[in-house]
Amino acid sequence: PGRFIDNMVEFAHKVEKLGKDDPRRITHSIKVGLTLSLVSLLYYCRPIYGGFGSSTMSAILTVVVVFEFSVGATLGKGFNRALATFLAGALGFGAHHLATLAGDKGHPAILWFFIFLLAAVASFVRFFPGIKARYDYGVLMFILTFCLVSVSGYREDEILELAHKRVSTIAIGCLTCVIMSIFVFPVWAGLDLHKLIAHNIEKQADFLQGFGELYFGTKRDMDMSWLHGYRSVLNSMTAEEAMANFARWEPAHGKFRFGHPWKQYLKISGMTRQCAYRLEALSNSITSEMKAQKPSEFKKIITLSCMEISIELGKALQEISSAIKNMTYPFTVSTHIVNAKTAAEDLHRALEGITLNNTNILDDVMPAVSVTSLLLEIIECTKNIAE
Amino acid sequence: PGRFIDNMVEFAHKVEKLGKDDPRRITHSIKVGLTLSLVSLLYYCRPIYGGFGSSTMSAILTVVVVFEFSVGATLGKGFNRALATFLAGALGFGAHHLATLAGDKGHPAILWFFIFLLAAVASFVRFFPGIKARYDYGVLMFILTFCLVSVSGYREDEILELAHKRVSTIAIGCLTCVIMSIFVFPVWAGLDLHKLIAHNIEKQADFLQGFGELYFGTKRDMDMSWLHGYRSVLNSMTAEEAMANFARWEPAHGKFRFGHPWKQYLKISGMTRQCAYRLEALSNSITSEMKAQKPSEFKKIITLSCMEISIELGKALQEISSAIKNMTYPFTVSTHIVNAKTAAEDLHRALEGITLNNTNILDDVMPAVSVTSLLLEIIECTKNIAE
Repeated sequence: PGRFIDNMVEFAHKVEKLGKDDPRRITHSIKVGLTLSLVSLLYYCRPIYGGFGSSTMSAILTVVVVFEFSVGATLGKGFNRALATFLAGALGFGAHHLATLAGDKGHPAILWFFIFLLAAVASFVRFFPGIKARYDYGVLMFILTFCLVSVSGYREDEILELAHKRVSTIAIGCLTCVIMSIFVFPVWAGLDLHKLIAHNIEKQADFLQGFGELYFGTKRDMDMSWLHGYRSVLNSMTAEEAMANFARWEPAHGKFRFGHPWKQYLKISGMTRQCAYRLEALSNSITSEMKAQKPSEFKKIITLSCMEISIELGKALQEISSAIKNMTYPFTVSTHIVNAKTAAEDLHRALEGITLNNTNILDDVMPAVSVTSLLLEIIECTKNIAE
Repeated sequence: PGRFIDNMVEFAHKVEKLGKDDPRRITHSIKVGLTLSLVSLLYYCRPIYGGFGSSTMSAILTVVVVFEFSVGATLGKGFNRALATFLAGALGFGAHHLATLAGDKGHPAILWFFIFLLAAVASFVRFFPGIKARYDYGVLMFILTFCLVSVSGYREDEILELAHKRVSTIAIGCLTCVIMSIFVFPVWAGLDLHKLIAHNIEKQADFLQGFGELYFGTKRDMDMSWLHGYRSVLNSMTAEEAMANFARWEPAHGKFRFGHPWKQYLKISGMTRQCAYRLEALSNSITSEMKAQKPSEFKKIITLSCMEISIELGKALQEISSAIKNMTYPFTVSTHIVNAKTAAEDLHRALEGITLNNTNILDDVMPAVSVTSLLLEIIECTKNIAE
């Protein structure tokens, strides 16, 4: 029993952490609960509207499947579902009609053939990367609805009546979802993406600003966890692509128009990732530096310039990050870049003048220099985008 | 019309490419088509079994939703669906029963409350990363079935009869999918993961073996696309995790037992990725080296050792890759590592002895040295895993 209580306490902590990390998760859960119970009320409206009854089921199904965390995802799925149901319903009706013309014997054979053909083609279509990203769910719904309509043994007028009910309940389901997700504590995928990108760049700025002090030993605290904040960007590509896909469905909100250039965010993020690979290499040299305790003569020569480079670059990135956040043009960035460039030139000059006896230590400065040039490139690119 | 034909031709090329890249995609599409048409035949079995009829729909729905590309994904979804339907059905029946006890007036209110509670809790549960990865679909199905059962206006004996039919059709749907995916041209997620990991390591080996020649200028062809094969590993984490999740559902196949340590693959892959970040830095230095044409004095000194290090490491990785492929222990790897270490020591000694006037060129060798130490670490780790 003691162990059971321990498990429960641990579980409670996990739940608390999930909720605290992003309180919108709790709001989302309540929203889903509300929407579902709202839609299920439809069932009890029978006397008034005269016959939703069992068609309520498809409204419930729609809500369960369509309601997603962000507005964009919900809109995308709702659109997919509506379009796919409509198209497949029409095609299925056509197939059914054709099969009826063939008489009682030909009927199953023709339907069988149609189903096989459509299911195979649609399954293959799902492998196209572009369709997989945006219309995967729609294609699934298409196969499903087509099968349901064409196989059902109803007469044609029955199908039409059923279709009418089905379409209206699905529309109600979709609309409820869309309204709930847009007007009740909305979660915008676009805004999230925007914040994520700015956050990633800021983490890199933190790293660069802290790097100098840590590496050249003016500060030696061992708590380096804050330095590794930039690591989250390394594997975030898939999540970002999904967010950008969702964001494309979203209407204008806050400072974003419909048709905001979301793809630019992916480009910026790609460059940020390139930069993160370099930071990863830098951070490795910190760890190896921690082991070798005594600072060498060579290191003293490069300390000043290197620290300036990394701090100026950190400032530049910080600038870019807050420019993205506020959607302004980063005016002062170029100053920082120029400063960093000057420091880099100083460093080159200093290096040309000296003679080296203990080359091992060069491990230390070279990554910094190569990162410098890379960062410069990145910053140039970011400037070009200038939303 | 000309443009239309161009578009069609382009589309045909795309289709051809998709099919050629992985012919299993075509087989998969045909499998889905066959399974669906098989299951829809159930509808016509009415006279014999006495009454699948409209319940066929849920079999069709099951097939459309459960049938996935790999065996593991299909099994996982099938299991999720079966378990969730069963659990939610039982709970929904209980809720329905409780609500009936409360009389005509309390009935809707109690149901409303239950639906709200379950939908909210289940939606929140979906945010747990562990559940998201393996049971996301099951939780969705759970909400859906619970709503359907508890809202339906049937009497209790009707629900039981419906549940009986529903369960049997869903079971038939799941079984057909599982049988089709296991016995007809199976696609094993585990095998794919295994191949992918070995392939990624091999690409890195290719890069290292080619790097020396390209960098030190004994060969200067500009076609570097083959070098960048290793880049695919940089962003493959999400795909690998999904594959490992699917692989855990799969029964014994080929050389893999059920319960094969799939997580080890993710660890290896994580280390491979660490290594790829370093290769990325190396590859950058190649490009900058391409611009500076004349080889320097310093470069001549390090050429031999560096080339040996990179070639030996390439061989070691090659060895590991083929050891993974054949599932043997990589015996000769240690020799290559020792060779690489010796070469690295030679390099250090050579560097200590010389005096440098033109330090700029140091950009070139240092990444190689840091990569060396990192590769050594990685190889040690991989040896420890030794399946």
